[in-house]
Amino acid sequence: MLDSMRLFPSDPEARAVAARLYEAVRDLPILSPHGHTDPVWFAKDEAFPNPAALFIQPDHYIFRMLYSQGVSLESLGIPQVDGGQQADPREVWRIFAKHYFLFRGTPTRLWLDYSLSTLFGLKERLGPENADAYYETISKALQAPEFRPRALFEKFRIEVLATTDSPLDTLEHHEAIRESGWKGRVIPTFRPDGVVDAEYLGFLENIEKLGAITGESVGTFKGYLNALRKRREFFKEMGATATDHGHLTAMTADLDPSTSESLYQRILSGRSVPEEQQIFQAQMLTEMAGMSVEDGLTMQLHPGSIRNHNRQVYEKFGRDKGADIPSPTEYVRNLRPLLSRYGNDPRLTFILFTLDESTYSRELAPLAGHYPALKLGPPWWFHDSPEGMMRFRELATETAGFYNTVGFNDDTRAFLSIPSRHDVARRIDCGFLGRLVAEHRLDEDEAFEVVHDLTVNLVKKAYKL
Amino acid sequence: MLDSMRLFPSDPEARAVAARLYEAVRDLPILSPHGHTDPVWFAKDEAFPNPAALFIQPDHYIFRMLYSQGVSLESLGIPQVDGGQQADPREVWRIFAKHYFLFRGTPTRLWLDYSLSTLFGLKERLGPENADAYYETISKALQAPEFRPRALFEKFRIEVLATTDSPLDTLEHHEAIRESGWKGRVIPTFRPDGVVDAEYLGFLENIEKLGAITGESVGTFKGYLNALRKRREFFKEMGATATDHGHLTAMTADLDPSTSESLYQRILSGRSVPEEQQIFQAQMLTEMAGMSVEDGLTMQLHPGSIRNHNRQVYEKFGRDKGADIPSPTEYVRNLRPLLSRYGNDPRLTFILFTLDESTYSRELAPLAGHYPALKLGPPWWFHDSPEGMMRFRELATETAGFYNTVGFNDDTRAFLSIPSRHDVARRIDCGFLGRLVAEHRLDEDEAFEVVHDLTVNLVKKAYKL
Amino acid sequence: MLDSMRLFPSDPEARAVAARLYEAVRDLPILSPHGHTDPVWFAKDEAFPNPAALFIQPDHYIFRMLYSQGVSLESLGIPQVDGGQQADPREVWRIFAKHYFLFRGTPTRLWLDYSLSTLFGLKERLGPENADAYYETISKALQAPEFRPRALFEKFRIEVLATTDSPLDTLEHHEAIRESGWKGRVIPTFRPDGVVDAEYLGFLENIEKLGAITGESVGTFKGYLNALRKRREFFKEMGATATDHGHLTAMTADLDPSTSESLYQRILSGRSVPEEQQIFQAQMLTEMAGMSVEDGLTMQLHPGSIRNHNRQVYEKFGRDKGADIPSPTEYVRNLRPLLSRYGNDPRLTFILFTLDESTYSRELAPLAGHYPALKLGPPWWFHDSPEGMMRFRELATETAGFYNTVGFNDDTRAFLSIPSRHDVARRIDCGFLGRLVAEHRLDEDEAFEVVHDLTVNLVKKAYKL
Repeated sequence: MLDSMRLFPSDPEARAVAARLYEAVRDLPILSPHGHTDPVWFAKDEAFPNPAALFIQPDHYIFRMLYSQGVSLESLGIPQVDGGQQADPREVWRIFAKHYFLFRGTPTRLWLDYSLSTLFGLKERLGPENADAYYETISKALQAPEFRPRALFEKFRIEVLATTDSPLDTLEHHEAIRESGWKGRVIPTFRPDGVVDAEYLGFLENIEKLGAITGESVGTFKGYLNALRKRREFFKEMGATATDHGHLTAMTADLDPSTSESLYQRILSGRSVPEEQQIFQAQMLTEMAGMSVEDGLTMQLHPGSIRNHNRQVYEKFGRDKGADIPSPTEYVRNLRPLLSRYGNDPRLTFILFTLDESTYSRELAPLAGHYPALKLGPPWWFHDSPEGMMRFRELATETAGFYNTVGFNDDTRAFLSIPSRHDVARRIDCGFLGRLVAEHRLDEDEAFEVVHDLTVNLVKKAYKL
Repeated sequence: MLDSMRLFPSDPEARAVAARLYEAVRDLPILSPHGHTDPVWFAKDEAFPNPAALFIQPDHYIFRMLYSQGVSLESLGIPQVDGGQQADPREVWRIFAKHYFLFRGTPTRLWLDYSLSTLFGLKERLGPENADAYYETISKALQAPEFRPRALFEKFRIEVLATTDSPLDTLEHHEAIRESGWKGRVIPTFRPDGVVDAEYLGFLENIEKLGAITGESVGTFKGYLNALRKRREFFKEMGATATDHGHLTAMTADLDPSTSESLYQRILSGRSVPEEQQIFQAQMLTEMAGMSVEDGLTMQLHPGSIRNHNRQVYEKFGRDKGADIPSPTEYVRNLRPLLSRYGNDPRLTFILFTLDESTYSRELAPLAGHYPALKLGPPWWFHDSPEGMMRFRELATETAGFYNTVGFNDDTRAFLSIPSRHDVARRIDCGFLGRLVAEHRLDEDEAFEVVHDLTVNLVKKAYKL
Repeated sequence: MLDSMRLFPSDPEARAVAARLYEAVRDLPILSPHGHTDPVWFAKDEAFPNPAALFIQPDHYIFRMLYSQGVSLESLGIPQVDGGQQADPREVWRIFAKHYFLFRGTPTRLWLDYSLSTLFGLKERLGPENADAYYETISKALQAPEFRPRALFEKFRIEVLATTDSPLDTLEHHEAIRESGWKGRVIPTFRPDGVVDAEYLGFLENIEKLGAITGESVGTFKGYLNALRKRREFFKEMGATATDHGHLTAMTADLDPSTSESLYQRILSGRSVPEEQQIFQAQMLTEMAGMSVEDGLTMQLHPGSIRNHNRQVYEKFGRDKGADIPSPTEYVRNLRPLLSRYGNDPRLTFILFTLDESTYSRELAPLAGHYPALKLGPPWWFHDSPEGMMRFRELATETAGFYNTVGFNDDTRAFLSIPSRHDVARRIDCGFLGRLVAEHRLDEDEAFEVVHDLTVNLVKKAYKL
């Protein structure tokens, strides 16, 4: 099922170079500096419950495709806001297997085939005929000690795995991991959206909690900032090397302190209008950049997703249910206030992501190819795919080079897909470099250096690992 | 002139797969669910007058290119608003042949070569030297019975051909076709732009006619909607399976009934401002989606063309003269009102088209990869070309898959180009699939299934044929 | 170092065609109708001072990349606003050599390798080990007569080289070249930004100077226009065949004379607001198009660059320091006023450039494939690269054809890079055509005609050379 030449260019000359390059990075450890796995898995190290709970129910790439073709989320056992979730996992798996053909030509298919084959030895294509047999095999395997989260972590050769966490999180699972004596490095990432975005569910209570946890009086902007500083410090102590910011736009601001203070008071009043909330978020990006200059945490910005586009799905199933849709994203004017202040500061590493591929060559590569603080994150979400990764390299490299990029992020909550995602990224990078070499645009010895840098060195440098 | 390997990737491995796939779909019947041929051709079955009238004067792809290079529309005999049209068709053909080199690298060239070669046995490249001989050959052939519209329809193996028609149309030609006993399936499509867009020439008279035809009192919004319902019903009886909507933007609205009513009154007053007209059109898309839920007609939206950009050409030659220019088109926010209401309804099939390729991966594939009602139409107009089709597959497939697309539309008023357009589409799909197989991203047996689905099954399903 | 097959597709069939095509154009003379070399070089014909001053300090492609990776502009000896510039050129060269790996995958690397190899016989990859030796070799060569500007001009087989000049320029260097008896054709280009853009440094003084030079009373709009007419006439006498306009947007206007007059008065008052300044610039594009209709100068528009994005760099180092960043650019609505007036006039040649690649297929190709006056300039700035050029052909050709494009512009201030830039452009065009031939979309004899047209004929025609 998994051809050794898969994902390389089919042209023999480029393919041969790609295969040689891949040989050199295939078995390198995995660095996963940005993702959404659950730290409790590694804290408790319990067996994963069943194939549906492992592969389907947490993976919006999978159920959004099924839903788009008329499969109800109820029938897949997707948890509901009111707590309901009724579906026999074996039946869920059968539905999935029956619709496996829908994933033809998608990265999900590549990830799944890789996991089924390399982890469970299931080397035929999944379909209705073998659905039950596959379910049995996987279920049985999941009970074995070598399929516990920690064992898989080691088997996957993960050197570091970053989770994404609320600033209000106690990080108790991270602490439990540390105290367990297990050597796996699972580190948190500081993601303050819930205390920065006034539209976030429970925003005002979150601010209160922030004050309570830190002992800072969050009734003033200064106190609020200090509280954030303290939580960042705590995250750092717990191993964090980065922050992450998910905003609707890339808007930044650089207000004077008294304007910030009165804006904060409006936000706290609960009567702020959307424009004020947006400017507050914009100002907070600049504040966060300033704190990164102070404490050295690498800063990541993920803008451009319109969350919960499908109201009916949101009301019944809540957030992160495959109904977040990208929208056009502007970076050049929006980032200017932040960059004017901190863009030339060598202490800041600011990594940009996008869902709007038209910005790669128009905005992101020109910005990253100039500002010392800026780096380009890998293709994100819908673009974390063979064609998407190739477009990123083709569109960004000529202006930003390789050295203003930061390697790969798997960005996933699907733990078992991590090795396959890194494998796809390595293969595509080798394919791109193979073409450059075959077209005599780069020497092969340089391509070996570059692919090592993309796989390991640039990740470690950007995320200070 | 027509190499059997044309349009396939030149890499031998991918090309070989593409050729095998193409063999399997080359001779399948043509389904043409969206186009602009004239039903009178099939009703009267008269000979086409001459090569210029057949190939050049109705085809804005051709005369726009000639015009851009300084050839006057008068010299090509393009009909003028004042009724003037003076050009010797033989002279028009000579001008065309002299400028045939302008079409190098364009799909028009591919379509023409295919038609000249397969239909008229003209296998040398058209140019000034053979212009007259070609004119003679074609003219002569057009007088033969096997070049009458119905004979060509059968020769082309067209299983169904949809026209595009005003709701005020009597569909007399469609009726004549039915009553003639000829078995060719030529069906209308309900295109209500002229009674929905207040800027449309003769809009208010159109509304009146709508009332007169249906016996509904179109003085109220409710009556107007009922009149539209009746016309849709009539179209359905005459074989229609779809509606089509050409709007400047993809804006939709979901107003309450009383707001809609007063908005309609403003529109009827003839004193509405552009913003009101736009909201009215936006509301009408949602109303039409609601009617599609009721009556099952598949709904198509073609937004983003700025019509009649060239004022001088419009004033002298009228609409559809190659001066419609695309503009940036936003879907995610614009469609939300309609999708919130009907996007999860399995009874609706809503097919989106675009002239803004930046939306494929950013907006359209994510939307269609989630909402059950949404499907992606094939590359449209300027993008109905080898590179355009390939980009569509590369940009949309990884997120929307193949099964949220609907096969090919030829969308043409150039009847003779229909087989060549479908041939290009099939070849490009085979080339794309050939590459996926050669890169081991898809198994070859699956590619055979997919290419059948793209050529036949997805079209039939989406358009309920 | 320079493989003869470089930049061609690696597929053997397409590569073989590309190589044959390239053979036919490789040694054709260079036409450089748009660029930024300094005419004083050819007037005085003095030796270039040293490798750093030749290769690094004038080339923002190079120092922006170094700066993005933490190399200070001071250390590179970039001239400062206060006149400071302290850096040992040999040390600058060492820094450059040490960071040469940063340019992997960029066009700068291709240009440099070509120049070092073909001009100086330096055939190993530049790096820290050979930095000093390379510096010596180049320094020594620069003292030789065959490395003087005029000798290089001839060695490069430049048939015509256009500079870019302020309307206030005396063109004394151009005159000196003429009077010197040297046969090299170095012509000016009329670039009026400094007397059209009210935000331009010294704008009001520039207007005054314009009046003083021409003897026109620039206190009225009519006098101002007449002054511009006179300067255009002077440029024409000095050999100019084109104008160039660098605007933030592509906005055009077509105001009546009295509105233009009062707008001009506001501008002259020094109290105009940004909106007024923008409309003034918009109106001036239409005025310039009108003058081009009169005097036959080809008109070029380069919109979409946000200049001096990095405030700190601008304050210390001034303009053109690699901190200009593209932004989304709209053409269809913005150009309508100008095109409504002059777009159908065969006397106008109006060449559009873009930094927003999403407009190639959406806006620019449809516009140029219709309006007789419009042509598409080659990929500009960040997109003047192998991938960028290929995307341009892939995205624009199917709608605009080859014959609405105008060949290549090197657009450079790096004189020594001119042959390498034209070589890259020729190779990419050959590669694109090679693929079309290999895919049987174009006959090989036609491809030979096209590549000649792209290299020579279309340039001469568009720029009236």
